[in-house]
Amino acid sequence: MSTINFDETELRRFTEATFLAIGCSDEHAKLAADVLLSSDLRGIDSHGVARLSGYVRLWEKRRINATPNIRIVHETPTTATIDGDRGLGLVVAPFAMNVAIEKAKIYGSGWVSVKNSNHFGIAGYHASKAVAEDMIGFSMTNASPLVAPTFSTERLLGTNPMCYAFPAGKYPPVIVDMATSAAANGKLEIAQRLNKELPEGWVQTSKGATSTDPLTVKNGGSLLPLGSDREHGSHKGFGLSATVDILTAVLSGANYGPWVPPFVAFLDPLSDLPGEGIGHFLGALRVDGFRPVDDFKRHMDNWIERFKNAKPTNADQPVVIPGEPETAAEKTRKVNGIPLTDAVVKDIMELSSKFGINAPKERDK
Amino acid sequence: MSTINFDETELRRFTEATFLAIGCSDEHAKLAADVLLSSDLRGIDSHGVARLSGYVRLWEKRRINATPNIRIVHETPTTATIDGDRGLGLVVAPFAMNVAIEKAKIYGSGWVSVKNSNHFGIAGYHASKAVAEDMIGFSMTNASPLVAPTFSTERLLGTNPMCYAFPAGKYPPVIVDMATSAAANGKLEIAQRLNKELPEGWVQTSKGATSTDPLTVKNGGSLLPLGSDREHGSHKGFGLSATVDILTAVLSGANYGPWVPPFVAFLDPLSDLPGEGIGHFLGALRVDGFRPVDDFKRHMDNWIERFKNAKPTNADQPVVIPGEPETAAEKTRKVNGIPLTDAVVKDIMELSSKFGINAPKERDK
Repeated sequence: MSTINFDETELRRFTEATFLAIGCSDEHAKLAADVLLSSDLRGIDSHGVARLSGYVRLWEKRRINATPNIRIVHETPTTATIDGDRGLGLVVAPFAMNVAIEKAKIYGSGWVSVKNSNHFGIAGYHASKAVAEDMIGFSMTNASPLVAPTFSTERLLGTNPMCYAFPAGKYPPVIVDMATSAAANGKLEIAQRLNKELPEGWVQTSKGATSTDPLTVKNGGSLLPLGSDREHGSHKGFGLSATVDILTAVLSGANYGPWVPPFVAFLDPLSDLPGEGIGHFLGALRVDGFRPVDDFKRHMDNWIERFKNAKPTNADQPVVIPGEPETAAEKTRKVNGIPLTDAVVKDIMELSSKFGINAPKERDK
Repeated sequence: MSTINFDETELRRFTEATFLAIGCSDEHAKLAADVLLSSDLRGIDSHGVARLSGYVRLWEKRRINATPNIRIVHETPTTATIDGDRGLGLVVAPFAMNVAIEKAKIYGSGWVSVKNSNHFGIAGYHASKAVAEDMIGFSMTNASPLVAPTFSTERLLGTNPMCYAFPAGKYPPVIVDMATSAAANGKLEIAQRLNKELPEGWVQTSKGATSTDPLTVKNGGSLLPLGSDREHGSHKGFGLSATVDILTAVLSGANYGPWVPPFVAFLDPLSDLPGEGIGHFLGALRVDGFRPVDDFKRHMDNWIERFKNAKPTNADQPVVIPGEPETAAEKTRKVNGIPLTDAVVKDIMELSSKFGINAPKERDK
């Protein structure tokens, strides 16, 4: 796959201009662009500017409101439900995370469930906001149904990511940010583009048979929960995905299970929806609500060092601390630029001509 | 494996008497027995009276304090750290869960991290206490190191369970209670007793090779994280296990990673420990902090019905709602008794003669 390199600043300018073009406020355009660029910088290419045209298409279908009135509709000192007013999840989730953090500052913890939102980008962006305040961050979202529960062939769950982010001392934060399916959808898309066989245990056919065909899900099959099959704990992946679905949607009043509206604009939401939009769940827990921050960070560093120094199975592959590869990618891409595939560049060029925005300049070779 | 059936009341009497014999107060003996019996009733045989002699052996080694002064050592309105004073986790965790629930009653949520404790039985017991109050319950514990992180051969993590418990309306609560390893240690022990080959993906040898030998872990190998290998997401199982280790121990001041004291009394804890005892994390989140309880329960019922009615892969195996098999076992065992294996009965008979307690009467055939 050939790629073209762009500077972060050029992609950021272009992304902000696109969000302004669909009617977002200055503040929202900047924030939404920041979430997408953070994904590209951290090497999670599937969730960055690659999705920009997808958000625009949902806006064109009037499924995204560019000027939402995001508001708290229910609360206690440490809990809140937020109505995202069909806004970009990229701006609704930061609003919600901020509410969680402000509650945690006063009471030690804050928890927000969100309805009537759209896709919020990478879960890690939102959880990390708590880390900057010496808090532990939690973020989850439900998503378009692609995953079948154990013992079923029906797509009833999204890849429903959960993220836990922990501050450390001299090391970068530990960020566990994971789809609750065996494989993320982005990995499947890469295999499709390369027409490459999948490992067994990622997908099943519409009849529930194992398959390594990269087109299985396109042909009516489904992704499998983390664990792949019952013997290897797929009921656990299902349980985690169910947990995300309930905390984000049953608790907030969003849609859940098969009723979660699809991210792709060419598929319409089902009728007789039980809720509004998609759901998120965000939380912040003050470290000094449990022990002094310095003590916690010192032990986090000790934890990280012990695991980094674990005896490796192969000498050339040490243990990877959760979040470490993304932090490394961010360092590199800030300097060397962000590589975009030809398909993503084509998407961006189309947006450029649609809205009359100067295309991002390629980085000097 | 042959089993003998006992009535719940007989096993409860015997278990309470055993805890009284090691010096527990009336209240603690009743509570500890309730946690163990709940496990046996719910069909989780590995965590019930089968463990009673294990707790006694730890007490004999002076690693369990039968008369602990359990106390809050740090708190904010919604957070607390509890020192378990080397008590039975079976009484320390209920104390902590109660603190979380009382905080949630006032502020909407409560979160407690626990140090200086011991094994707390099944995670589901503690999380379910919140459900009875129309709250969502969270419980986690770290445990003796048996699991290797992805890319390593070292046992650095316990099977570190996480549990989420949600109230429903006309259906039983949804209880996700899962080890974060591919297989729980109890399943391995069953295979060992039967000398039965394991599925690939449960364990690895001390060199990191795949193995199906049930004695692999006894011979220096390790359990694998949920996901089994990198390609199937074992880094996610590792991330979940790390999350449990940090929330239960790095946050509270308990031991973490390889320093978690072993449950078996014949292995001594390591020297130069970074913390005290093992750690738990318990939480309670008021449902009506987000939406009216009746609305939530109605949508939980809808969620459960939709998943129960999912198209099955095989007509004779419908989708299993998390917690459903345990609720069914409890109903049956309350009526038909609790089957114990010969090995467990032998253990109980030894305790009976050691402490001069009348052995539990077998159920009439």
